[in-house]
Amino acid sequence: MARKRATGEKISKEAYEERESALRTQLLACQGDLMDENYPVLIVLNGLDPEPINEVLNAFFEWFDPRYVEPHALHERTAKERKDLFLRRYWQRIPARGRIAIFAGGWILDAYDELHDGDVSLFQFARNLIHIRKFERQLFEAGAHVIKLWIGEEPRLDPDEPSVQMLQQTDWAAAEWAIVDTQHSRNRKLACGELVAESLRHRLDGERTTLEATPLRDRADIESPPRLADVDLSVSLDREEYRAKRKKLQKKLHKLSDACCKKGIPAVFAFEGWDAGGKGGAIRRITQAVDARNWKVVSVAAPTDGEKAYPYLWRFWRHLPQPGTITMFDRTWYGRVLVERVEGFASDHDWQRAYDEIRDLEEQLVETGAALCKFWLHIDRDEQLARFKAREKIPYKQYKITEEDYRNRDKWDAYVEACDEMFARTSTEAAPWTLVAANDKYNARIIVLKTVCDALERALDR
Amino acid sequence: MARKRATGEKISKEAYEERESALRTQLLACQGDLMDENYPVLIVLNGLDPEPINEVLNAFFEWFDPRYVEPHALHERTAKERKDLFLRRYWQRIPARGRIAIFAGGWILDAYDELHDGDVSLFQFARNLIHIRKFERQLFEAGAHVIKLWIGEEPRLDPDEPSVQMLQQTDWAAAEWAIVDTQHSRNRKLACGELVAESLRHRLDGERTTLEATPLRDRADIESPPRLADVDLSVSLDREEYRAKRKKLQKKLHKLSDACCKKGIPAVFAFEGWDAGGKGGAIRRITQAVDARNWKVVSVAAPTDGEKAYPYLWRFWRHLPQPGTITMFDRTWYGRVLVERVEGFASDHDWQRAYDEIRDLEEQLVETGAALCKFWLHIDRDEQLARFKAREKIPYKQYKITEEDYRNRDKWDAYVEACDEMFARTSTEAAPWTLVAANDKYNARIIVLKTVCDALERALDR
Repeated sequence: MARKRATGEKISKEAYEERESALRTQLLACQGDLMDENYPVLIVLNGLDPEPINEVLNAFFEWFDPRYVEPHALHERTAKERKDLFLRRYWQRIPARGRIAIFAGGWILDAYDELHDGDVSLFQFARNLIHIRKFERQLFEAGAHVIKLWIGEEPRLDPDEPSVQMLQQTDWAAAEWAIVDTQHSRNRKLACGELVAESLRHRLDGERTTLEATPLRDRADIESPPRLADVDLSVSLDREEYRAKRKKLQKKLHKLSDACCKKGIPAVFAFEGWDAGGKGGAIRRITQAVDARNWKVVSVAAPTDGEKAYPYLWRFWRHLPQPGTITMFDRTWYGRVLVERVEGFASDHDWQRAYDEIRDLEEQLVETGAALCKFWLHIDRDEQLARFKAREKIPYKQYKITEEDYRNRDKWDAYVEACDEMFARTSTEAAPWTLVAANDKYNARIIVLKTVCDALERALDR
Repeated sequence: MARKRATGEKISKEAYEERESALRTQLLACQGDLMDENYPVLIVLNGLDPEPINEVLNAFFEWFDPRYVEPHALHERTAKERKDLFLRRYWQRIPARGRIAIFAGGWILDAYDELHDGDVSLFQFARNLIHIRKFERQLFEAGAHVIKLWIGEEPRLDPDEPSVQMLQQTDWAAAEWAIVDTQHSRNRKLACGELVAESLRHRLDGERTTLEATPLRDRADIESPPRLADVDLSVSLDREEYRAKRKKLQKKLHKLSDACCKKGIPAVFAFEGWDAGGKGGAIRRITQAVDARNWKVVSVAAPTDGEKAYPYLWRFWRHLPQPGTITMFDRTWYGRVLVERVEGFASDHDWQRAYDEIRDLEEQLVETGAALCKFWLHIDRDEQLARFKAREKIPYKQYKITEEDYRNRDKWDAYVEACDEMFARTSTEAAPWTLVAANDKYNARIIVLKTVCDALERALDR
């Protein structure tokens, strides 16, 4: 439960100066010690009245060394931000390790404002509180220290009130609330400062709560999730049939993508599959049809050291499409439960929680109105070997084949197991997997084009 | 001089398909080879008619593997961008090494549009062409390969026409123009594609023009630039006097910064000085007075490997203030001609050209209406040693003192020489240095507060 800070009588000027001096020393000492730590700190100042929040924000910048603290006083959401993923502006502002960010306002108050302004339904508000918890969990798992201060009166205890819900649902082990309610400015500033100093010192001393692991669901969300073994790889198209279908579908895609652009609908086309499965070719058949102003392709490689300092999904959030644009991912966030799992780059705990984190990310996309397609381009081992050999003969494709590609072939069965579990745990009604029989490239490209057209059409109809 | 591509008769469909197939192979081969190179490629498609430009842009994305190319089709500048540094959107979009970015439109066309739309005077347009050359030079020096295609009719040869000026002034060794003028779509696409393929192949084969070095000016822009030896370090303020002045100045600064925020005026306060010179304390006296929503502090450390892949000033451009905000730099772009020069981290060629690059950056800031202050906090060696010793006794300040700080003391004289040359070469009317006598902290803080107030006042009056 939220801690409360008893406030008592108005503090005299002299008493304030004495306590403030001690507080400042404590905060600066924490700040110095924090520089040697490999986690970031997020201090969130929330409340319904902006005045006292600004006052406390400014006080923190009198106490801390401002060179190593980032203020994030977020203005009202712009018209564009209102249509966008509401957690984007927080994902973008997660500080680097060893640094402190102070938020005036924040994700929780934003969720409430969205409801208050009529941008979302009560149902979506409730969903957003769940997304917030998943966000805070990911921060927690990445080691971040989150301190949330509610400044002002605690909302009345009618449990149906959204403001009460907001506080209760987000008061949990990963990021507890502390409530500071007083009409005296000096009392308020000291209470906030001392709460933060205590919380930082506890953490620096190595004290930390643990979170229960998110349970792995024992069943899929849909009735019969796909499996690699069930894909019929014998299907094929002849060249003439392919050309005719491709032209028709590309024409359709051109129109649909234009319409989505005009209506501000974003789209994510996520490509996974075996090496040499034909991801590049399939992507090019899409980019040919869409105006170059409206798409980007993100090639996902192993995370850099800089990226590893953030929650795993951070580097994907950076590339999620703005309203009205398409982002294609050549390899995706599923790397966590594929290569990182199979190669042992991620701990069991880390890749197992990824299913839940990924599902949550995709739910947010779909709830914001995005079209979302997830492809696995499936070929068999013989076809892969034939393609490797063929590539080695074409000068401009040689760069695509490395020793590692051959080594990965040895783990084929482990990848099959990881794939089938991934399909089972991340296939949902809203974000289904499309397993593409890709031994025949023509067939693969037509299926991909058709699937993205269907997805854009559905997004336009919503 | 700009190369021109003769266009001749309309190419037949059959001939086109044959040449396109060969072209595509060449482009993909270049793209593959480029991945092993440590420089980026920028392809700029400019012209007065947007239609053929989009057509060519889309053609490039049919030919290249879209996963390793970034399209930058820049929409019209927003109202906010019109008030901002016009090169910002290009600095932000410089691709990483080994990657290709294709711009539909670009810095040169933007400069012309600004004039055309009445946003800038003819004089400022001429200045912007100079900034563009300095930008292209920095790209060149960082190894980038820039290919500029002018698509459409070459502007008439009346030398006074801005459009003629635009092409002539920006047609130079660092980034030559090639002109493609034809009414036939197939001819146009092939000509553009083939020009790019040739240019890439030349570069991949190791051919590169050289640029004449920017001459070091032998005199300062102002009559008597400051020197460290002339600073009178004996000045001091007593505590009472300091407190009274500080309060008054902070109150004034609060008002002025509010006014600048409302009028969209940005400000840059750049802090350099000896270690323990009191930069942090001076910065805090500013942040205390300004609303935390309106400022940020950027602490500059050594560049990371990722940052080294870009032109030197790139990492500072990222942090330049948006209209209406203040950015304080704790250490700055002057690191190039101070620590990097003294420690030998930069070659002579690199730190010597930095004077010119820096002057150009600061000119752009001032021309956009920004308030700009540059401080050197000056103390003597004895005072520095005394502060190091004092810090070691205060637990929360220990993190500020390292072995390196002591080592740097041994190079005091080399730094003095570098400083005086820096003041001489980068003191201008618009961007003067303020050398602050900082043996007395009170005096230093008052001078800093007074200087920033004056600068904001002048910016408001302009």
